[in-house]
Amino acid sequence: MSYRIDNLQYANWSEKIFREMREGGVDAVHVTIAYHENFRETVLNMERWNRWFEQFPELIFQGRTGADVRRARETGRTAIFFGFQNPSPIEDDIGLVEILHSLGARFMQLSYNNQSLLATGCYEAEDPGITRMGREVIAEMNRVGLVIDMSHSAERSTLEAMEISSRPIAITHANPSFWHPALRNKSDTVLNALAESGGMLGLSLYPHHLKDKSDCTLESFCEMIARAAEMMGADKLGIGSDLCQDQPDSIVEWMRVGRWTKRIDYGEGSASAPGFPPQPDWFRDNRDFGNIEAGLSAVGFSAEEVAGIMGENWLRFYDESFSAAPEVSLPRAAE
Amino acid sequence: MSYRIDNLQYANWSEKIFREMREGGVDAVHVTIAYHENFRETVLNMERWNRWFEQFPELIFQGRTGADVRRARETGRTAIFFGFQNPSPIEDDIGLVEILHSLGARFMQLSYNNQSLLATGCYEAEDPGITRMGREVIAEMNRVGLVIDMSHSAERSTLEAMEISSRPIAITHANPSFWHPALRNKSDTVLNALAESGGMLGLSLYPHHLKDKSDCTLESFCEMIARAAEMMGADKLGIGSDLCQDQPDSIVEWMRVGRWTKRIDYGEGSASAPGFPPQPDWFRDNRDFGNIEAGLSAVGFSAEEVAGIMGENWLRFYDESFSAAPEVSLPRAAE
Repeated sequence: MSYRIDNLQYANWSEKIFREMREGGVDAVHVTIAYHENFRETVLNMERWNRWFEQFPELIFQGRTGADVRRARETGRTAIFFGFQNPSPIEDDIGLVEILHSLGARFMQLSYNNQSLLATGCYEAEDPGITRMGREVIAEMNRVGLVIDMSHSAERSTLEAMEISSRPIAITHANPSFWHPALRNKSDTVLNALAESGGMLGLSLYPHHLKDKSDCTLESFCEMIARAAEMMGADKLGIGSDLCQDQPDSIVEWMRVGRWTKRIDYGEGSASAPGFPPQPDWFRDNRDFGNIEAGLSAVGFSAEEVAGIMGENWLRFYDESFSAAPEVSLPRAAE
Repeated sequence: MSYRIDNLQYANWSEKIFREMREGGVDAVHVTIAYHENFRETVLNMERWNRWFEQFPELIFQGRTGADVRRARETGRTAIFFGFQNPSPIEDDIGLVEILHSLGARFMQLSYNNQSLLATGCYEAEDPGITRMGREVIAEMNRVGLVIDMSHSAERSTLEAMEISSRPIAITHANPSFWHPALRNKSDTVLNALAESGGMLGLSLYPHHLKDKSDCTLESFCEMIARAAEMMGADKLGIGSDLCQDQPDSIVEWMRVGRWTKRIDYGEGSASAPGFPPQPDWFRDNRDFGNIEAGLSAVGFSAEEVAGIMGENWLRFYDESFSAAPEVSLPRAAE
């Protein structure tokens, strides 16, 4: 069986879910450990993971490099990689980029839905692009090997991040707008620039990102991937399911509202449907990756292409992205 | 003697300076207690002030209302009002607005030189205006009586803050661009909008904001005030000296660089002159407010206008701005 990597999940973690990962043959998962958390709160979330690693060593362990994905496969476990959907863990402190990378962070979004200190989120009315601090932090992330993720960022910021970054970036969980024009999905311009710069797109299974939402068919999803592959190359695609399994609806409210407003913000939902939408029946949880694999073959992908999309593309990206860049000397004065 | 209020200082505080305030007849000073500090660090700075209040009760005490300025005058002391030059003390948490107001914060800039979570700073290349969180925080500041200060903000953000805010805002320390076109000084558009909305301009004595910098003459400074008064009305003007007395140059480097870059940023200075510039000889410290008072009379201001500019305009603004707004019910959903 080819490698299986899911490059974005935010479940209500439990032994049950870790066992389902094993049932589904999932070698590695990039888990979100911060939406709105500051540095100290993010460290608390790492401490929680450390307790799970201690409690379930036969199921999971912390991944830091591509080699850990291979080790996971060899030992029948799932490697867990940490990432953030917001730069809130670095607060206003560029020095925290290296500290958090040392603690295992491997992906960081430059913005969530709102404006951050670094970049603009997709719900802001205006997008001025990457900020002064954003330029400095991108250089530092490039240096230490923390991958820039622009999944929730606005378009201009996303394009500028690719230009400024000296290393390929990722959009860990989103789909093409040509298939389903949701605010969170990405334009042809973004997808083409991502592919040209060697970046990766993680295809999302979150119903708000799917055509026909919870009723989306496996065939439609896989046909979209075929079209994306024609545009970007099949080697630029992977899975980033955005699976939020077993979470109560209070969590999606917190994701949207954080601490930035005292009022309700429905985000991708609405007043009549504020909660998590149900998953499509062909991708309920970690046990269903086989359905996607079969669906990709059915729409005509080669065995090699299927293996790439299911995990080997992410594995190659992990190998190239998570280590420090060769030494470079920065100009001493900021722009 | 009329009231004397200096609506912005950031000195290296000491008994010497507190005694100079008394010599200069200064009834109230708005002191900056945060440039880049987060909530906890801001509280530490408040603790430091609490020790000074305990140590020098015959010289200073914490001001919270306009009545405290009158009490300062009656008891021969200086009332110290707290403010922030950046929204860093509220971090990403709108709930901290009320907490910090309860602790005595009375002014908060929505941005310093860079992009913040709320608004854009004057050194960014682009200014998209007030962010989603910025709109929410402005409403909360209006509610509790924390004054919006846009001294270091970019122009569009400044104009939008005035539009969005239901209460008058302040530019606590800056001068008109028509006199000295520094990046930190303000355009006619901003000054006119500020006056029309009932806001206040604190005239700065920081040499980078002065025509001819450290060589600026008292006459030139007071003629500029006369022109500003023609444009805005003399009742919209006060002093916000930006006096950074006895500070080592390492402090101005920290103000510019904070924790957002690992490189040097010279801000208003330059590689050849990175430090604090010398004060003009007619405004060395708190003992020299009499020079400004005399200079204002010399350019033709009436006694009443001079009293307004030296302190009574700020006192009126304090009376109107520091208390909670009458109860309003907010719409439940965010924009």
